[in-house]
Formats: sequence, structure tokens, C-alpha cells
Amino acid sequence: MVSKVVVTLRLYLCILLLCWIPKLYAFDLVHEPISPIPAASNLSPEKIELGESLFHDVRLSKDNSISCASCHNLSKGGTDNQPVSRGVNDALGSANAPTVYNSALNFMQFWDGRAFNLREQTNGPVHNPVEMNSNWPEITHKLSHDRPLSERFARLYPEGLTADNIQDAIATFEASLLTSHSPFDRWLKGDAQALSEQQIQGYRLFKSYGCISCHQGANVGGNMFAYLGAVNNVQSYFQQRGTPINPPDYGRYNVTGELEDKYLFKVPSLRLAVKTAPYFHDGSVSTLQEAIRLMARYQLGREIPDNHTEAIIIFLHSLVGEHPRLTP
Amino acid sequence: MVSKVVVTLRLYLCILLLCWIPKLYAFDLVHEPISPIPAASNLSPEKIELGESLFHDVRLSKDNSISCASCHNLSKGGTDNQPVSRGVNDALGSANAPTVYNSALNFMQFWDGRAFNLREQTNGPVHNPVEMNSNWPEITHKLSHDRPLSERFARLYPEGLTADNIQDAIATFEASLLTSHSPFDRWLKGDAQALSEQQIQGYRLFKSYGCISCHQGANVGGNMFAYLGAVNNVQSYFQQRGTPINPPDYGRYNVTGELEDKYLFKVPSLRLAVKTAPYFHDGSVSTLQEAIRLMARYQLGREIPDNHTEAIIIFLHSLVGEHPRLTP
Repeated sequence: MVSKVVVTLRLYLCILLLCWIPKLYAFDLVHEPISPIPAASNLSPEKIELGESLFHDVRLSKDNSISCASCHNLSKGGTDNQPVSRGVNDALGSANAPTVYNSALNFMQFWDGRAFNLREQTNGPVHNPVEMNSNWPEITHKLSHDRPLSERFARLYPEGLTADNIQDAIATFEASLLTSHSPFDRWLKGDAQALSEQQIQGYRLFKSYGCISCHQGANVGGNMFAYLGAVNNVQSYFQQRGTPINPPDYGRYNVTGELEDKYLFKVPSLRLAVKTAPYFHDGSVSTLQEAIRLMARYQLGREIPDNHTEAIIIFLHSLVGEHPRLTP
Repeated sequence: MVSKVVVTLRLYLCILLLCWIPKLYAFDLVHEPISPIPAASNLSPEKIELGESLFHDVRLSKDNSISCASCHNLSKGGTDNQPVSRGVNDALGSANAPTVYNSALNFMQFWDGRAFNLREQTNGPVHNPVEMNSNWPEITHKLSHDRPLSERFARLYPEGLTADNIQDAIATFEASLLTSHSPFDRWLKGDAQALSEQQIQGYRLFKSYGCISCHQGANVGGNMFAYLGAVNNVQSYFQQRGTPINPPDYGRYNVTGELEDKYLFKVPSLRLAVKTAPYFHDGSVSTLQEAIRLMARYQLGREIPDNHTEAIIIFLHSLVGEHPRLTP
């Protein structure tokens, strides 16, 4: 009778210990290839505020029809959830609008890295004929008739309302759009309860399949270029897409003109992936399931079973942090 | 006799095959956690040139004694090879000057990430009392007496010589300082001959010990924050250093004031590590051997045998790319 109790107690102890192993494991993960998103700091609150109103200002477009926020809707994950965006006169863009959240953490801007920072990035949509189709002299001319706005600029910048200062204010606002305190980041910082077992398993799979090779760092991407079709042939990638290869598919080649940069794209951040369908530079993929399947096949040369894909998606949900504009 | 020839031929074939395996392996490494440094693109050559002369302009400092290049010597790997730098009046700085090469690829600037980009970074040394100890009105006033310089600004910027445009030109020049075409990058792109066997072994060790967890992406770092003493206690790290903990050792805490950011530092790029001794935020470590030993102990909780450390250093040599100013 006594020995039976001892055996039962031992069994309970074993079960208890086994339940604790994943938690111990979580605490031990101190050198992960992903780091928490830092809090935005050192940005002038007045410039952020000015930048936010400019971000929503349709006068940045030729016919006063669209603003930055038209394609980077802050309540839709900082995108428009369209394959490609529509500019002035309903013109169709050529690339999927990436999220503006956490974009300050990317090593370069645009899918092909043609801008070095957010400030330089603003030149793109402003001048693009299928986006805002405008230019800085036109914009500063329009805005200079807005007396209160000019006064706000004068208070914050010695030179007042200039193209440079419009760019600076918008870039400052965008740099403030960091989504910190995600469950994953809290887990990284030691809160073992922040992730479910399934999320931890999804993260392990994300690492073991090799997704982590490119999606890494604070932004879980945005830190390097990678060839589309790194393992499997890029031609067969476009074949399965079913539409011909167009210049926007050439990636960084469009910036450098070097043949070796053909089909080279900036690795996108996965921080808000669960909120920013559709996917890829052409917005051709509607679901994360399909995006993971294609990335596995063409970037890693693997087929991932459905239950593993689901676990990875559940992990991706844990990457979503907080920002007042994201979840009002 | 015939069977002897067959056996010998088989042996030769085996040796030949074995010799080829590392080369095949090298070709197969298509999804590595490090990517080649992209070529600088899309930067105005005239602004780069103007930025370069400003980068060397001592009038940016209070007493016209130092320029950006004083602490970021382009022929010394973009640093001054001092533990901490000396500013005006020989004042001693508080942090090791990181390399300016490839700094455009970092997700934030400074050891504590207090600037979001290169442009914003210029505010730091200009105002720091132990660096240039100046300010923008003073600098623009001095420079405005330089007629040819003012004319260069007027040709390139609508607003001419302003603080903003000085910052823009310097940041543009700095963004051009990318060291591409390193042996490692050529190897990544498929040139199996670009690395020696020892370098490939060093890279494998770099990954298997876990250095890669933080030093990743195009810049082999500069993509996340990490706690100093992530595994081993930070206090014991400072104990072995032998000098008391000072405010500059607090890292990102100095920016955010959050206790959880204490001892959090931007992971530095290793691209030019072999050229930029001494190491760490305080420049307290003179050699790569010691730097690797301490990082292994305090970040990874490992002791690395000497021959492995040497292999890793030999790998680090392969990360050094080319730039006309780096190797004249």
C-alpha cells in the first residue's frame, strides 16, 4: 500500500516535471535570432503630430484624391490589403504596398531597396505617375496657402514649410509607428506565459525549416535581399503564378541594372504578416498558408505539411505588437 | 593486374569525389542567414562628393580642430582604432567610435540606437561637448562665408546651404560607403573558390556556436539590440573588465529611461571587425581573440577552444569588402 502511494507520487512528480520542461526551455532562450521591437524614442512629439497630419493629407497627390494613408491604412495593418494599390485616376500600381508599421527598422525601403531611408522613400509615391503623380514644388505651393499649417512648420523648423521638412515630418511620424510589446517580444524578455505551447512549437518549426535564415532581427525580416526562387527555379515560380514576368518582377535589377540583381527582393518583415494579406511583391498570394507553401518550395526546397504550416501561422500571430493606431 | 587498375581507378574517383564535396556544399548554401552587401545605388554623385568634403570639414567643430573623419578615418576601417575618441580640446569621449562603412545598413545608429538614421546621427557628434561641441547655426554661419561651398549647395539644393542640407549631404556620402564584393559575398553568390576551406569551417563554427543569432543579415549585425551578458551575469562581465560601471555602460537605458533597457546595446556589424579594433561599446577589448572569448562566455555561455576562435577570425577576414577609400 505504501509502495503504491510512493509510485503514484513519483508518477505525479514526473508529469509535473515534464509539464515544466517547455517553460524552462522558454526561459533559456536568451540568444534568439529575433529580438524585441524597441520602443520608439528620441522623436519630437510635435513633429510626429505634424507628420501624422501630412500622412493623411490628400494634397500630396496631383488631384487631391489620395494620401499616404490611402495605401498605408493604419487600421489595416499599415497596408490597403489590395494586391497592388490604386493611385490618382484609379491608376493601378505595380507592387504590393508593404506595411508602414516598423518600416523604420528595415535596412532599406521599397521591395527593391531603392530608397535608403523613410525620408528618401517619400520621393517615390509623390512622383510615381500611378501613385500621387505630383512633385515637391507643386505640393509646397498648395500647402503654403494653408496658413495654420505654415505656422506649424515655422514653429518646428527654422526654414519653415519646405519639401525637406515635409519629408522630415512624415518620416518622423513613420518612425514612431513601432508595434512593440507583442506576445513574442514579451516571451523573449522572459514572460514564459506570453506564448502558447503551439506558438512555441510554431517558432521552433519556423527556425528548423530555415525561414529564420532570412526573417530575423527586430523586424523578422527587412535586413537583407534574397533571390526569389533561391532553391527552386524562379521561372517555375512565375509559371505557377500564371501571369507573364513583368519589369516589376525583376526586383533590385530595376535599381542597379546589374543582371545578377534580377529577381532579388528585400526580405519583407513578418511582424504584421497576419494582418497584411495579400502577400509578395506582386500581391499575388492571398493567404499565409499559400505564402508559406510557396516560400518553403522556392526558397527552401521543402514541402511543409499542413499541420506545421498552421503552427507557423499561429506563431506569426504572436509577432503582432501594439500601437494605438493599429488597434484603436 | 586488370582488377588492380580498376581498384586504383576507383580509389582516385573516390578521392576526386571527396575533394568536390565541400565545393558542392558551398554551391548549395543558398539560404544563408547572411546576405551580400548590396551596391550603393540611387545616390546623387554630386551630393556624395559634397558630403565627402563636409565629412572632412573641421569647421563642423567648435574650434575647427576635428571633422567626422577624425574619429571615422576611412583608411582605418572607418574608425580611429582608439578605445574611445578624442573631441575638441582633447576631450575624451565615452563610447568606442563604430565604423562609418556600411552604417547605412544598420537598423538604428549609435550603440544605444538613439538616432533612427544617418541624417539624424549627425546631430550627435556636432552637439556633443566632448566631440565637436558645436551647433548648426554656428556651423552654417561659418560655412556661409565660404563662397564656393555655398554655390555648390545652391546648385544641388533649392534652399542652398542649410543645416538640413549639410546633414543630407553627409548622410548621402555615408550611405555610399558600402564595402561590397567581399570574398564571403562572392562565395554566397556561388563562387566556391572565393573562400578557403578554413574560412568555410570558420563560418560553420560561427553558426554552430550561435554567433549568427545576433550577427546576421547584410551587415552581419546592426539589426537588433542584445543584452550585454545575455547568459552570464552582466555584473561579472564588468567585474572582469576591472573598471566600475559608468552611465555609458547602461546602453539603451540612457535613451528610454526604462530599467529593462539597461545594458541593452545595438549588435555591431562584423563586416569590418578585423580592421576596427579595439572592440565593444567601451573599446575595452584589444583583440578579436579576446572579443570572441568574452562574447562566447557572456552572450552564449560557451567556452570556445583556441583553434575554433582562430577559424572564426579567418572567416571574419572574408567579410571585408571593397571600397576605394578603404584600400586606396
